[in-house]
Amino acid sequence: MKALRYYGARDVRYESMDDPAPQSDGDAVVRVTACSICGSDLHIYHGHGFSKDIGFCVGHEAVGEVVEVGKGVQRHKVGDLVMIPAAVGCGRCRSCLAGVVNTCEFNMGACYGLSAALQGSQAEAVRVPAADANAVAIPEGVSEEQALMMTDALATAWYGVRNADVVPGASVAVIGLGPIGLMAVDSAYVMGAHVVYAIDPIPERRAIAEAAGAITLHPDEALERIKADGKGKKLDCVVEVVGSDATVDFALRLVRPRGTVSVIGVQQSRRFAFPLERAFAAGLTFRTGTCSVPEELPALFPLVRSGRLRPERYVSHRMPLSEGAEAYRLFEAREAGALKMVLTPD
Amino acid sequence: MKALRYYGARDVRYESMDDPAPQSDGDAVVRVTACSICGSDLHIYHGHGFSKDIGFCVGHEAVGEVVEVGKGVQRHKVGDLVMIPAAVGCGRCRSCLAGVVNTCEFNMGACYGLSAALQGSQAEAVRVPAADANAVAIPEGVSEEQALMMTDALATAWYGVRNADVVPGASVAVIGLGPIGLMAVDSAYVMGAHVVYAIDPIPERRAIAEAAGAITLHPDEALERIKADGKGKKLDCVVEVVGSDATVDFALRLVRPRGTVSVIGVQQSRRFAFPLERAFAAGLTFRTGTCSVPEELPALFPLVRSGRLRPERYVSHRMPLSEGAEAYRLFEAREAGALKMVLTPD
Amino acid sequence: MKALRYYGARDVRYESMDDPAPQSDGDAVVRVTACSICGSDLHIYHGHGFSKDIGFCVGHEAVGEVVEVGKGVQRHKVGDLVMIPAAVGCGRCRSCLAGVVNTCEFNMGACYGLSAALQGSQAEAVRVPAADANAVAIPEGVSEEQALMMTDALATAWYGVRNADVVPGASVAVIGLGPIGLMAVDSAYVMGAHVVYAIDPIPERRAIAEAAGAITLHPDEALERIKADGKGKKLDCVVEVVGSDATVDFALRLVRPRGTVSVIGVQQSRRFAFPLERAFAAGLTFRTGTCSVPEELPALFPLVRSGRLRPERYVSHRMPLSEGAEAYRLFEAREAGALKMVLTPD
Amino acid sequence: MKALRYYGARDVRYESMDDPAPQSDGDAVVRVTACSICGSDLHIYHGHGFSKDIGFCVGHEAVGEVVEVGKGVQRHKVGDLVMIPAAVGCGRCRSCLAGVVNTCEFNMGACYGLSAALQGSQAEAVRVPAADANAVAIPEGVSEEQALMMTDALATAWYGVRNADVVPGASVAVIGLGPIGLMAVDSAYVMGAHVVYAIDPIPERRAIAEAAGAITLHPDEALERIKADGKGKKLDCVVEVVGSDATVDFALRLVRPRGTVSVIGVQQSRRFAFPLERAFAAGLTFRTGTCSVPEELPALFPLVRSGRLRPERYVSHRMPLSEGAEAYRLFEAREAGALKMVLTPD
Repeated sequence: MKALRYYGARDVRYESMDDPAPQSDGDAVVRVTACSICGSDLHIYHGHGFSKDIGFCVGHEAVGEVVEVGKGVQRHKVGDLVMIPAAVGCGRCRSCLAGVVNTCEFNMGACYGLSAALQGSQAEAVRVPAADANAVAIPEGVSEEQALMMTDALATAWYGVRNADVVPGASVAVIGLGPIGLMAVDSAYVMGAHVVYAIDPIPERRAIAEAAGAITLHPDEALERIKADGKGKKLDCVVEVVGSDATVDFALRLVRPRGTVSVIGVQQSRRFAFPLERAFAAGLTFRTGTCSVPEELPALFPLVRSGRLRPERYVSHRMPLSEGAEAYRLFEAREAGALKMVLTPD
Repeated sequence: MKALRYYGARDVRYESMDDPAPQSDGDAVVRVTACSICGSDLHIYHGHGFSKDIGFCVGHEAVGEVVEVGKGVQRHKVGDLVMIPAAVGCGRCRSCLAGVVNTCEFNMGACYGLSAALQGSQAEAVRVPAADANAVAIPEGVSEEQALMMTDALATAWYGVRNADVVPGASVAVIGLGPIGLMAVDSAYVMGAHVVYAIDPIPERRAIAEAAGAITLHPDEALERIKADGKGKKLDCVVEVVGSDATVDFALRLVRPRGTVSVIGVQQSRRFAFPLERAFAAGLTFRTGTCSVPEELPALFPLVRSGRLRPERYVSHRMPLSEGAEAYRLFEAREAGALKMVLTPD
Repeated sequence: MKALRYYGARDVRYESMDDPAPQSDGDAVVRVTACSICGSDLHIYHGHGFSKDIGFCVGHEAVGEVVEVGKGVQRHKVGDLVMIPAAVGCGRCRSCLAGVVNTCEFNMGACYGLSAALQGSQAEAVRVPAADANAVAIPEGVSEEQALMMTDALATAWYGVRNADVVPGASVAVIGLGPIGLMAVDSAYVMGAHVVYAIDPIPERRAIAEAAGAITLHPDEALERIKADGKGKKLDCVVEVVGSDATVDFALRLVRPRGTVSVIGVQQSRRFAFPLERAFAAGLTFRTGTCSVPEELPALFPLVRSGRLRPERYVSHRMPLSEGAEAYRLFEAREAGALKMVLTPD
Repeated sequence: MKALRYYGARDVRYESMDDPAPQSDGDAVVRVTACSICGSDLHIYHGHGFSKDIGFCVGHEAVGEVVEVGKGVQRHKVGDLVMIPAAVGCGRCRSCLAGVVNTCEFNMGACYGLSAALQGSQAEAVRVPAADANAVAIPEGVSEEQALMMTDALATAWYGVRNADVVPGASVAVIGLGPIGLMAVDSAYVMGAHVVYAIDPIPERRAIAEAAGAITLHPDEALERIKADGKGKKLDCVVEVVGSDATVDFALRLVRPRGTVSVIGVQQSRRFAFPLERAFAAGLTFRTGTCSVPEELPALFPLVRSGRLRPERYVSHRMPLSEGAEAYRLFEAREAGALKMVLTPD
């Protein structure tokens, strides 16, 4: 089959590789009908990914049609349309059985397309291990592209906003307005925020958040403006969607006493200089982590089906998989309004 | 002063009566700048009110300016703009100190305008007992008319929807589309409902709910349609806003197993024939009661100020207090699109 | 095999019947090592059970060893020790997949031993449909008898107390001190109740509750005593474990404004005369239903393993299955301190 | 009057100073009947307190009798027995009105006995600012010594355990077994923990925790033992009660994925090296802060009155106030089993 393979910094190639096949009874093979590029794919694209492997297939957001199932697969059959969430669990440990596949006791943090150990899904087909746990039927009324948005981006955004303890009437900030940040803005409004401040240095991204109803701010002006609006009071909830020490620190400056900071940007900092004395005085809650997609779907499916959440509007490009290298280039450069890049096998 | 006084069924008169005065150190007197008619005022108007008194001033929704304070009043001073929530607590018992004035240990259920014991606020002025507990400053950014809507109607609607355990992604029905029911529709969407079914036999009221984004249904078709939409599954949350045994029973038919019915219509039924065997099999939660307005304001003030909730749009009539009798007539007859009737002392 | 079979009021016989066998791929057969009699078995024993069948095997609380599995069973294998919760779900519907087997969309309320449709487990062996969903491995550190107590009684008690909104510091009453009521007393203390009033007309049962730390009351004195203790304030949480209209009504009299009544006694009342006007004034929550055992186990397993909950101390009799008829007689008559009757196949 | 005054490191003297007097209408003066020494008093005793003042009266835990009230005080009168919580709020800001005095908008973190700005309560009398908000009547059934324990230590312990998201069935660790840590052990059990690991290097303190039902561990063995007990799974909830970077870091090592660390030790670290990458992978919640005593009392009063919590058993010494210097010496040295030191004016 054809797939996007990683060969080093900024070197992703559309090439042939072996067709995927089940490796155990619980596996399925899915013919990919659409896949997409995630912000975290850029870590790999920039050459400081999560392994030293070369030549593996990248990508962890995909939907498609089941074309082969191991004899232990019960919930899916050949021909089913499924979405393939980013995180992969064993399906049998205490955490997986409780629906939290991303903290699987045997494979915490396992994900497609990070190394040769588990090939990615920016390809014509992908092997799904423990398919009963790791593939989800796309329900009636949800389009394939909407489902694709829920394999990672929207589920992560929704989880991150939930983790910020957003309740109806809350004031919220979202720091970082890539696709996940924009979906976090929408999520915060659906959860009842009375105001969402959307913060990013890039004017084009702020413009999109503004169209979604947010009050948009450049980081340099955010703290002063927020304090002025609240007559000194800062925000109930802050969601960080960037993944740098500076933005996490900034998030902790925007939150009011007894408020919550939720960090969903991918963190690679071993030791973040946490302002503990200040957090102690203010009584803060600090929460971080990735989502388990299946946990979020009971809320997300009806909200997407009814149109209250419309993640598909953040799809900026629909391109053939064969042009994947160009898609990566555009996405990294944020050219041509690049947000969510959807790739379709030819 | 002038006031609307009750003299029997459908006999409310605009007449003179004694000016109110403080009766104890904690009292205040408020010059009413606007008041409104509540659905529950119709119980009195129909002649089967909550006392046998005659000649008392009716009404329990008002805003105005503080014109006199007892020497024990600490939170308000002459000249302050305040809203006067419907329920009245002593301000000192365990329930009041916990912010739940409507279940005051000494005066559970006390309310303006139900009898001569506590004169109503459809008048030029009103005495507010224990004013620190029973009057609330209108914050900047909230109009007097918006505050008036929060003295009872919006706070009750919001509380009723909260009590239905609405969470983001929930499916909700609201039974009864008077002003409180319409505000309940809006509240449910703000809390993240993916769908709100708005049920009422009157087409004009359904039309308003439809404009607010609800799926509107006549009661006769509601059960079948809801089951069809859910492929057999009924609703997560049902809010009853009418106050009859029939509608409470209907609410219990619309809810799914493990769902919640919240009853906020004023109940005068001593013994409702509760379908206990069915509720037990389905594992239902049934919740009823009135709100304590001050409890709801921390969420409502910012939501109203930011425009996410706009209760003022359900004001159908603005009339002088002197035309109060005509306002009651229109409201009872639902003439001229009568919804929320605001009365202004001349 | 041998089993206890129902032939009419007070006519349960230890007799031979066909050995159970899988009826579909997901089924398992379990050799019963211990089973027990539940209060709800008395409905059948009294001749007004849940079907008109004759000759079926009764009972719905059992533990044992897996002796046969269909080829679709993934979580259990021959030789495993399992507990068999009372309620039975299909294992595949939305409710079952969410872990709520008792409101299975296809078999709401299905349970062993109510009719010939699903044979009971007071037998040498029992067929377990959809065994992945309906049998649970007994974890290390939990005895078979403890697990047996969790197949229904303790899980129901725990769920009922949870449903009463018990939080640390709460005041609680439990009405009805059979085995489930006694376990509810223990559960309420584990959840942090500062006081549990245990109410029953039978002195022997009150004595057991008193030994568990409860304040015990005869129903006739309960209301006055509770109000006196609280200086007029009634209770935060009331758990009804009897299943009669009178005790449900009584529960509603014991609860404070804004409190919660949880009804777990098996209800056969089509129309209970609910005091709606009073409940509305007081702002009550009323919750009823049966538990889904698997939902409760993540909390119960560690609490039982650590000895914080010791349901096995309510086992009053351990008898051979062949003496089942005598066990039923003792249990019904409450003779010889009969509480939880454990039966062991010979 | 006589009072304990601070003159430098390890130099606390029992001396005369001016009698306290109201400074505004809302103030009260309380004759102290008992006061106690808190672990955080040692920060001052060690000479690195929270101000550079000399000669001020120390201490922030006291109970006593109201002897003078400003004319604006409504909830207290001369002769009332009151407890005086450590934190002091203005009583009128949004935070204070919501019951969270410790994050008062005008005086966040204000506390008695940290500087000359607000004299402490290890004295014969103390001025209580905004006494309606900052003094609490001691209810019937609660002893003065029990109330004294609730002015800071027990309320802080309880809050810290709540903040660790302890639910019935949880596994918990408490790091640091001074008086607050020991009360945290008790609190965790009352909230339903199935196990509490109590961790401290000092054998005498572990012995007390063991008597309270905890599994006690030296820090050096804790991680291995906890992982072994959980077959690799770490703890749901960890409470840090020390206040050093090392113990906070250790807390973060003991918690399972998706678990919560609650830090209530007084933190003076500007920049703690937070293991963000690991916390992100594990999906942790990190919460820190001090309690608002009045928020915790509705749960604590009944639990103490009923004997479920018995903080008074951690009182190791009862000494006259005049021996305060010796009490500090013993407490710092942990001599003679020093835990909670109660001082009584002569």
